[in-house]
Amino acid sequence: MAKDQKKQPRPKAEPPKGFKDYFGADVTERKQMLDRIAEIYHRHGFEPLETSAVETVEALGKFLPDVDRPNAGVFAWQEAEVPGGGAGDWLALRYDLTAPLARVAAQFRNDLPSPYRRYAMGPVWRNEKPGPGRFRQFYQCDADTVGSASVAADAEICAMLANALEHAGITRGDYLVRINNRKVLNGILEATGVEQGAPADDVLRTIDKFDKVGEEGVRQLLTSGRKDESGAFIDGVGLTPEQAAPVLAFLTSKGADNAATLANLRAAVGTSATGAEGVDELQQISDMLAAMGVGEDRAIIDPSIVRGLGYYTGPVFEAELTFEILDEKGRKRQFGSVAGGGRYDGLVERFTGQKVPATGVSIGVDRLLAALRAKGLAGTQEAGPVVVTVMDRDRMADYQAMAAELRAAGIRAEVYLGNPKNFGNQLKYADKRYSPVAIIQGEDEAQRGVVQVKDLILGARIAAEASHDEWKAQPAQTEVARQDLVAEVRRILG
Amino acid sequence: MAKDQKKQPRPKAEPPKGFKDYFGADVTERKQMLDRIAEIYHRHGFEPLETSAVETVEALGKFLPDVDRPNAGVFAWQEAEVPGGGAGDWLALRYDLTAPLARVAAQFRNDLPSPYRRYAMGPVWRNEKPGPGRFRQFYQCDADTVGSASVAADAEICAMLANALEHAGITRGDYLVRINNRKVLNGILEATGVEQGAPADDVLRTIDKFDKVGEEGVRQLLTSGRKDESGAFIDGVGLTPEQAAPVLAFLTSKGADNAATLANLRAAVGTSATGAEGVDELQQISDMLAAMGVGEDRAIIDPSIVRGLGYYTGPVFEAELTFEILDEKGRKRQFGSVAGGGRYDGLVERFTGQKVPATGVSIGVDRLLAALRAKGLAGTQEAGPVVVTVMDRDRMADYQAMAAELRAAGIRAEVYLGNPKNFGNQLKYADKRYSPVAIIQGEDEAQRGVVQVKDLILGARIAAEASHDEWKAQPAQTEVARQDLVAEVRRILG
Repeated sequence: MAKDQKKQPRPKAEPPKGFKDYFGADVTERKQMLDRIAEIYHRHGFEPLETSAVETVEALGKFLPDVDRPNAGVFAWQEAEVPGGGAGDWLALRYDLTAPLARVAAQFRNDLPSPYRRYAMGPVWRNEKPGPGRFRQFYQCDADTVGSASVAADAEICAMLANALEHAGITRGDYLVRINNRKVLNGILEATGVEQGAPADDVLRTIDKFDKVGEEGVRQLLTSGRKDESGAFIDGVGLTPEQAAPVLAFLTSKGADNAATLANLRAAVGTSATGAEGVDELQQISDMLAAMGVGEDRAIIDPSIVRGLGYYTGPVFEAELTFEILDEKGRKRQFGSVAGGGRYDGLVERFTGQKVPATGVSIGVDRLLAALRAKGLAGTQEAGPVVVTVMDRDRMADYQAMAAELRAAGIRAEVYLGNPKNFGNQLKYADKRYSPVAIIQGEDEAQRGVVQVKDLILGARIAAEASHDEWKAQPAQTEVARQDLVAEVRRILG
Repeated sequence: MAKDQKKQPRPKAEPPKGFKDYFGADVTERKQMLDRIAEIYHRHGFEPLETSAVETVEALGKFLPDVDRPNAGVFAWQEAEVPGGGAGDWLALRYDLTAPLARVAAQFRNDLPSPYRRYAMGPVWRNEKPGPGRFRQFYQCDADTVGSASVAADAEICAMLANALEHAGITRGDYLVRINNRKVLNGILEATGVEQGAPADDVLRTIDKFDKVGEEGVRQLLTSGRKDESGAFIDGVGLTPEQAAPVLAFLTSKGADNAATLANLRAAVGTSATGAEGVDELQQISDMLAAMGVGEDRAIIDPSIVRGLGYYTGPVFEAELTFEILDEKGRKRQFGSVAGGGRYDGLVERFTGQKVPATGVSIGVDRLLAALRAKGLAGTQEAGPVVVTVMDRDRMADYQAMAAELRAAGIRAEVYLGNPKNFGNQLKYADKRYSPVAIIQGEDEAQRGVVQVKDLILGARIAAEASHDEWKAQPAQTEVARQDLVAEVRRILG
């Protein structure tokens, strides 16, 4: 063999690390869920938008164009040099569906209706270290209203989120949309007398730990500091107990119903005008939800929701599933958050210099699907096709005709296309496909104008449960006239 | 302003060159078409598969790993260095759906049923120079059977393709699936006595020009050469007229029906065993299509289909739309090809060393959609939502209640969320949304317990056609009791 003909090593048959393939029902169930959610988004007046997976790094923003490689968190690459021009653009895969919406809202601002309600669903990519259950491509399913400063837009999103979760298969009572407001928090910060900038940021960071350390932990962290479980001492922010009081009142202001919560919040914000405005907004959202028939068992004001409060500028919402599941160690735990959103500014401003108010929500479809599976409401094996077996290789056209007849009657069907020599392999194949029915026609049956119709589901049950005599009676297999094939299969499929 | 705080220039609000956004009905209609095609694929026993957009360049193959940058035709980038390890993998966006199938079929060969029928639909990416109507991201919609050498698999794909086109909205008679066979061509090459390798490749390349230069052109190019339109002389392959004869017989062997075509082909391949095998296969496909109820008005043997014959190893198919459309210059032309496929080897071989036979088809969804639009069967403006206008900002909850009621009745509806001050803007907005109905309730109407329901479609027609008196009569706007809102909207929507 010549030196330059040395054999190429075989490529590895695997996806890149952190990427995954989805087969059969995994694809179908996700698609059904997206379809159900899209139906609700659409019914609320939202329009579909599909942008491409690739954007310029410049338009994506967030990730500063680094001279060397601007790919912290994104998959990015540089276009080839422009002939006679300079270096090519840096392109990247979108990391969410909001950044492309910002670009579209700016690019088409003169053509789109305003306000612009749009929904989008599709994969996004994150260039992160993959871990167990953490993938570098996953689905998002967003709805946003761009160009409305009205709190009615936020209320609408909350109601729509509740409707979407139910339409996707989550029972009422198994989820709760919790609503908070950044403006209330701003009012609280005013009430503490803490200066804006670094001191206020310290307070915000501490509030973010409320989920983990609870009321007493936050109190210590806001004031003199706290020893954590490992015994290490975490410095406090240095507020006086009086300064810390409004923050703690805010975090614990959830009452028995919205009316009680809002009264507590009003007390907590004291004389802050911003705080009062925030409470008023929550009051309006509460009223509008009631008017839309969305009760407090579905969406509720809850000031303990603090995740994302630093990012959003007005109302913030989060949908949690309230039922318990067993984790990998068999311990009961809450399923937790499946969707989140809120009001944000500066969406279009980066491009045009003009502030455009926007509010929106993103549903984590893969988590929602996992929840339905945990409840046994998804993930069941779909029945496979009816398999027409091949007893006589030369009569393939006859078998194809049977499959075509079944399909024309709306029944999923196929002819066995492997090597037909070993009949056992054909039944094993039907088994692997979860086929409900196998059709058999040998030379003898063909001459008599009949087919054997084998009920594979009943057959499997008999094989598992029945005595040898029952087994021999073979009630799972029926002989019918050829022209009754479709009717008999229909009878078995029910 | 400090020097290091200099203003960042604003990013451009546009997608990368060659990428495009899809809005509203463009998204919905493509989705509906994919759903319709998937329904047919599924009914034929095919299982959905969704691989990720990103593969290793190594697994994608075709594009040789170039030390510098292996991105001829693909979007590729190198992963960051592995800490303590060597250079990172090269990753790329998939350029079709077949290469990922090859990787999956190899990776999961012990788990997947065999034969494995799978369908896949989704975007693919090509790093090519964008041009008018040519995009760097577009949809493919494939079905393949991996692991069956039986020509029954090919016949099934052809029948399924015809069924899928009809289910997607192409009328019977408006399309034709044409079928050829590489093995027949191999037999023809044997009959010419041309050696394998370079001489045979020259003949293949010449055959590929049949579409362009016709029978006489191919005859000249196979023998002594030809002057093209510009007057330039193209050297011939150098066959004798006797050697060229079987090739020309092959290309022109299409008869009045499959029986005639097959008889012509049998004569053309002469004593070649490979050729005879190829004709036999076409005969079987013809018989099986007939058995499946697919007549020659839908799928037909046509040896003039030569595109891709160099790539495929057995049967080759192509679906053409047979109706004429007007091109951008107003000239009538055939719409042309919307799907293609065939049998190919070496799919899995690259990974495992084992030859695995496979056959499949790919439908060009965007072209098919363009065809439906050219026929006026798609692309019509979808009706927008019912718009509940806002006359009284303080009664937002009432308006939200109306929209919620309409939605609960299955009617697409929304409240106007822009600044409500200028009522004309609200009706302009409804117009831009193609809303069929606007709901109006001012203070007066609220007190009287009624709403105004405005039929915007009728209103637009009256505005365009009616006299001033008719216009004043305003039959397009009706006052109904508040509780009759849903019924009245239903009546108008019909």
